[in-house]
Parts: sequence; structure tokens; C-alpha cells
Amino acid sequence: MLDQAADLDRVFHALADPGRRVMVERLSAGPASVSELARPLAMSLAAVLQHVQVLEASGLVRTRKTGRTRTCSIDPVALRSAESWIAERRTLWERRLDRLGDYLGGAARPADAGPTGPGPADPRTAANDPPKETR
Amino acid sequence: MLDQAADLDRVFHALADPGRRVMVERLSAGPASVSELARPLAMSLAAVLQHVQVLEASGLVRTRKTGRTRTCSIDPVALRSAESWIAERRTLWERRLDRLGDYLGGAARPADAGPTGPGPADPRTAANDPPKETR
Repeated sequence: MLDQAADLDRVFHALADPGRRVMVERLSAGPASVSELARPLAMSLAAVLQHVQVLEASGLVRTRKTGRTRTCSIDPVALRSAESWIAERRTLWERRLDRLGDYLGGAARPADAGPTGPGPADPRTAANDPPKETR
Repeated sequence: MLDQAADLDRVFHALADPGRRVMVERLSAGPASVSELARPLAMSLAAVLQHVQVLEASGLVRTRKTGRTRTCSIDPVALRSAESWIAERRTLWERRLDRLGDYLGGAARPADAGPTGPGPADPRTAANDPPKETR
């Protein structure tokens, strides 16, 4: 359905701008016109419209013109695909830490385990201690 | 801890590049040296190093130099803050749809409900039907 790589490029690029994130925040509470989106922002309508176009191209937002009003609303598919991509990487990384914790717990060699002792302890400390064989 | 806006700018910008996402994917399986990161990519080591610097500046990745080897690993804090930001917006948007569904279900006015009938039906259809008062 989505050309994954290209679409994630566009979604993450769209979210990298603070003004566009404010617009997504506003729209997550419900549809809004372009002028409603512009109201809290120190931006011209033209600038807001450009941001809306970036959001629309990324798939995060859909717009519909009714008379002279362009109404914007969230399209959740792109939001979900970006969220899943991040969540999958985070989960993979956490699972690896769990296995590392099990291994260290099972091996129970306090001399190798460093100042925090054996076991999972602080996961971030464990993650930043790659195997010692590089030196 | 994080300067939220500026950091999310950097995190989403870092994730907007497919090569950098490949690196994050590789690192979510465990720490790797810069040359290990370069191996599957059609990129010079210098280009990979530049991407690593962008990832490091965003907080997604930490690096540590041991002798001549720079080892990279995931820092989950930035990954989590980007994931939370998206998840919160998605949740807000879904809650609004639920309320809209409840309202339409409670009001039970089939004449106003369009071809899909009253009730929550397809949430995306509902989301893209803003109130009719604009025309």
C-alpha cells in the first residue's frame, strides 16, 4: 500500500519541522481549516499553506476544499507506519538487552560484570558496554 | 532532560534518510563499528561517518572510540521520545473518533449519517467528513 522507504522519508521529513508538528497536534484534536491552523502560528497564510502541502505529500494530512475553505484532517495510516517503524526498532533493541541480561545472569561472573554487578541492572549501561575483545 | 522541540526536529530529520534508517535497524540488533555499518551500504566510509554524526547529534546513537575502532550503539531515549510524540497524537485523534462515533450512535439520525449508516463504521470516512456547516 505504501512505498515504505520513500513514504517514511516524507513522513519523518514532514515531522522534522516544529511548525508542522504544531499543525499535526492541532489536527489530532479534529479537522481544521488552513486559517484555523495559521491562527496560533506567527506565519503568513502562504507559509502555512506550504507546510500543509508538505504534510499532504507525506500522507499525514488530507485536505478537502469546500467552497473557499480548505479543510485539513489527520490521515492515521502514515502516522501509524512511522510509529510502527520506531516501535519495532526499539523492541528489537530491548529484546537484545533482555537476552544480554539473561546471559550475564546465567554466566554469573561478577569479575566480568563491571561496577553495576551481574544481571540486567541499568539497560543503558549494558548497551554501551560492547564486548571487551576490541581491546 | 531533552529540549523537546529542537531534539524532535533532529530526531525526525535523522530518521528521514533511508541510509540512516538502515543503520538504526542494524544497531537495534546490537552495537557495530562504523565499518560494519558501511558494509551493506553502497557508500564510502566518509559518507557513513557523516550519517553517523547526524545520528549522534540527534541523540539516536552513541559512539565510543576504542583504539582505531568507533563503536556505535542505540540510545533508546530519543527513539522513545519520537515514538511517544507520534503515539500521543494518534491516540488523541482516535479518542476524538470514538467520541464522534458515540455521538452519532446516540443521535441515531440515519438521514445525516451518509451511505455507511450511523455509528462508528469506517473511522477514516468519519474523520474526513467535517461538520457540514462550512457550506
